[in-house]
Amino acid sequence: MKTLVLTAHPNLEKSRINRAWFDALAEADSVTTRDLTAVGGAGMAFDLETEQALLLAHDRIVFQFPFYWYSAPPVMKAWMDQVLSYGFAYGPGGDKLKGREFLVLVSTGGPADSYHAGGYNNFSMDELLKPFQQTALLTGMTYLRPFVAHGMAVATVEQIDASVPEMLAHLTDPELDPKVKQARLLKALAEDPTKAAAVS
Amino acid sequence: MKTLVLTAHPNLEKSRINRAWFDALAEADSVTTRDLTAVGGAGMAFDLETEQALLLAHDRIVFQFPFYWYSAPPVMKAWMDQVLSYGFAYGPGGDKLKGREFLVLVSTGGPADSYHAGGYNNFSMDELLKPFQQTALLTGMTYLRPFVAHGMAVATVEQIDASVPEMLAHLTDPELDPKVKQARLLKALAEDPTKAAAVS
Repeated sequence: MKTLVLTAHPNLEKSRINRAWFDALAEADSVTTRDLTAVGGAGMAFDLETEQALLLAHDRIVFQFPFYWYSAPPVMKAWMDQVLSYGFAYGPGGDKLKGREFLVLVSTGGPADSYHAGGYNNFSMDELLKPFQQTALLTGMTYLRPFVAHGMAVATVEQIDASVPEMLAHLTDPELDPKVKQARLLKALAEDPTKAAAVS
Repeated sequence: MKTLVLTAHPNLEKSRINRAWFDALAEADSVTTRDLTAVGGAGMAFDLETEQALLLAHDRIVFQFPFYWYSAPPVMKAWMDQVLSYGFAYGPGGDKLKGREFLVLVSTGGPADSYHAGGYNNFSMDELLKPFQQTALLTGMTYLRPFVAHGMAVATVEQIDASVPEMLAHLTDPELDPKVKQARLLKALAEDPTKAAAVS
């Protein structure tokens, strides 16, 4: 499986967590990293042929970004609005992403407990990421469970270091595809009549 | 009440619905319109002092944009990430938007029935707009019910024309603040014991 990581950070050089992730991913097997801020330049302009060819050459598409105002930095959206074009990602003949996988890799400044009803960010990450989930759904991609690192505004070097192997393990988890996990659980159930009886 | 309309459209001149709204708003009383694409230029760069002074001079802030990939065009996010700064919109002393009102004015290509569970866009506009709702909540603004025009990909000139007075009526509706509407309903209830009994 080949993974394409599209990184949208306005200042990747100065970033702590996203830089650490980017560097680790750049060294990982079967992973292509792409710094969209560098590629797009000041005008955030992308070459459609290049970007679309890259998508076609990979099975799992990862959007990596810091969570600013509950979404991605503008360069991610510039890339989406330009590259996910009519006839490629949607509309007649626009099935080129169908069957691929899509995953959000995101860092937040605020702590995990703030992303809940009753927390100061009110909504869960699943709720706030729905625009990305629906982008995957409309283009026929399988939406995989995101990897989220919370509390990065006050994270220690140790916490950032620890997030790297966790992130890599998540991105290569064979059960990220919900159908794969469900199939294993159903198979286990079928093989053990005691358990099957317990849920019937 | 003074209203500031921040318009984020990559090509306002060629737009049908957003141009019609923008032109009507530009002529409305107590409304300031601002074409963010023109102001930000190719680099989408905003002058903080100018933008923040404009916010402070208005009571109701409107984000106007076409719904691309379930969010706003990149220039809207560029404006947010630059202008809603630490110490102004959040953080210590960052209470400058507190008490103001916030409203999303948005057009979608797809029809209304697609923005439902079971529709091809799966989620409701309220769900997909949560990143904007939470931006309003964190900055202490009252989130007002959005104005959404669906089906604009196939809208007739008549439908576009008809949306203009509807949009203007929505933006000046005195009961857009949910507390105002609730207070009126509770007052009506208190004045009519029959109705009060019916809900008790």
